[in-house]
Amino acid sequence: MATADNESDLIALIAANELQQRETDSVILGIGDDAAIIRVAENHDLVTCTDTLVVGVHFPLQTSAYDIGWKSLAVNISDLAAMAATPRFAQLALTLPNADTEWLKEFLAGWQALASQYNIGLIGGDTTRGPLSITVQAMGEIPRGQAALRRGRAQIGDVLVVSGDLGGAALALQQLQAGETVDSGLALELNRPQPRVALGSALRGLATSAIDLSDGLAIDLPRLMAGSGLGAKIHLQQLPLKPTLAALGKSQRYSLAVSGGDDYELLFSLPAELQSRLAEISSAANVSLTVIGEVQANPAVELLTTDGSLFTPNFTAYEHFNENR
Amino acid sequence: MATADNESDLIALIAANELQQRETDSVILGIGDDAAIIRVAENHDLVTCTDTLVVGVHFPLQTSAYDIGWKSLAVNISDLAAMAATPRFAQLALTLPNADTEWLKEFLAGWQALASQYNIGLIGGDTTRGPLSITVQAMGEIPRGQAALRRGRAQIGDVLVVSGDLGGAALALQQLQAGETVDSGLALELNRPQPRVALGSALRGLATSAIDLSDGLAIDLPRLMAGSGLGAKIHLQQLPLKPTLAALGKSQRYSLAVSGGDDYELLFSLPAELQSRLAEISSAANVSLTVIGEVQANPAVELLTTDGSLFTPNFTAYEHFNENR
Repeated sequence: MATADNESDLIALIAANELQQRETDSVILGIGDDAAIIRVAENHDLVTCTDTLVVGVHFPLQTSAYDIGWKSLAVNISDLAAMAATPRFAQLALTLPNADTEWLKEFLAGWQALASQYNIGLIGGDTTRGPLSITVQAMGEIPRGQAALRRGRAQIGDVLVVSGDLGGAALALQQLQAGETVDSGLALELNRPQPRVALGSALRGLATSAIDLSDGLAIDLPRLMAGSGLGAKIHLQQLPLKPTLAALGKSQRYSLAVSGGDDYELLFSLPAELQSRLAEISSAANVSLTVIGEVQANPAVELLTTDGSLFTPNFTAYEHFNENR
Repeated sequence: MATADNESDLIALIAANELQQRETDSVILGIGDDAAIIRVAENHDLVTCTDTLVVGVHFPLQTSAYDIGWKSLAVNISDLAAMAATPRFAQLALTLPNADTEWLKEFLAGWQALASQYNIGLIGGDTTRGPLSITVQAMGEIPRGQAALRRGRAQIGDVLVVSGDLGGAALALQQLQAGETVDSGLALELNRPQPRVALGSALRGLATSAIDLSDGLAIDLPRLMAGSGLGAKIHLQQLPLKPTLAALGKSQRYSLAVSGGDDYELLFSLPAELQSRLAEISSAANVSLTVIGEVQANPAVELLTTDGSLFTPNFTAYEHFNENR
């Protein structure tokens, strides 16, 4: 294990990486000073979010540095996508148990693989010593006046739509925790989620509300509805399940799909009369889209089985501070 | 110990706090969605930084939640001050071992005591479970075209000036680590640094470069000079020492002042012909200012004693990944 003897070496490694955006029209000052200076494009607003990943909580101990680098950026970009923002900049606050330059190189390679897809500049950050933990702050732009995709704005009669398929990451995590061999495709679902940036942008002015599925439909759907005064019906048999889940029992596969989390798909509400445009949006954003339910006046959020009964997931939904977890 | 049973309760506590900025001309969307949306003032650029504080590294275990709240915001605001930016917004990523609402209330009270001084809106963040660690991202504004206070821009013949006095926080930490009683005034130096925001703004267009002293003059002065191709001379007897340090031996008090860190004073270079304006700047910014040395062509950074010999601090300077620490 190669170790750098001090923080300056780590910062130099990060700053030398190609992912540092050179000074441009938008990055007035990047890594290397007390703070970075950015210029938001004319007639745009800045969209900003921050998410922390802690070892053993947000990723298993054995996760590779490459995958941690990818995922720590991906979960933040996913939040920007859910606001219909265009990702632009990121800051990285890295807490490491020791100054392991090999680990950092792998981490940065994973980060860069995703950052380069969207030309996201790493403009600043912090390195410190402590238990492995990564906090990323991501910033994007949205044209001023173009409605961002907020929560709580769904309307009665809107259809609820989800991108991609669900439950794959949760199954991978379950297999990993059970000591089983994880299919490599499934492992990618867990470790390298693909944020739905193109979809978010395509939904501007069309969707009435949107959220990214990080903690699972059962938790994130109530969050999407909160503030609207409305509720929602989900028809479980319409859920786009990851094909691998077909081998599982019904209760198990629906539990993974609604309570497993880590999907990073977008869930959004769309006026029913725009439903005919889903094929075109799906094609533009290069991701499948599935209608899974509708918004209702009854403020309850209901997960319905084929016989119309309410479904209860067979494990407790994911919340970081839930003592039962 | 009161504990919230899940993350939503913590977020509700944070969002209900008066420090959440209501939606205004600049905060288009605050806490409660996937991301926040802010509008940078016309003809201004955004200045952004992030800093992590880890228990046992950046603050002693016994530090109160109130002081941790204050300091985690203060160290970030200090970075903005060193760029001459006006603080505006902050995001808080909080990793807690358990959902202790009493601790969080105290933390937020300390945060708010400082945030309210500058009307800094808490616009977003994240809560997660893990070893106590706080990452704050602070954002400020600077008028476009008005020179931010960058590092590496000092000129030969500039004088070097420091605000306030040095070594108090380092002495408090030393006493604490030795199990001695810490004078309450000194403890405040360590736990509640006052970022020099007014000074930073007052230096726009006057200072040629600036940095905030977080790791101590011996580390931060070379950082200030890096990129300029120039060096600096510091005359130790001119250093504004915290009066409490007078009781210590010479080597000890200068070591604390140059290598102790945690001062959060500004160190800046100023053209010699502007030295006559220091009294006016000091008065405007309500902080003492002391000339401690000058910029030289020789690229070395020299700490000189009264007899002209080079001073070597009696303990290793602070770097998070220094294995000797």
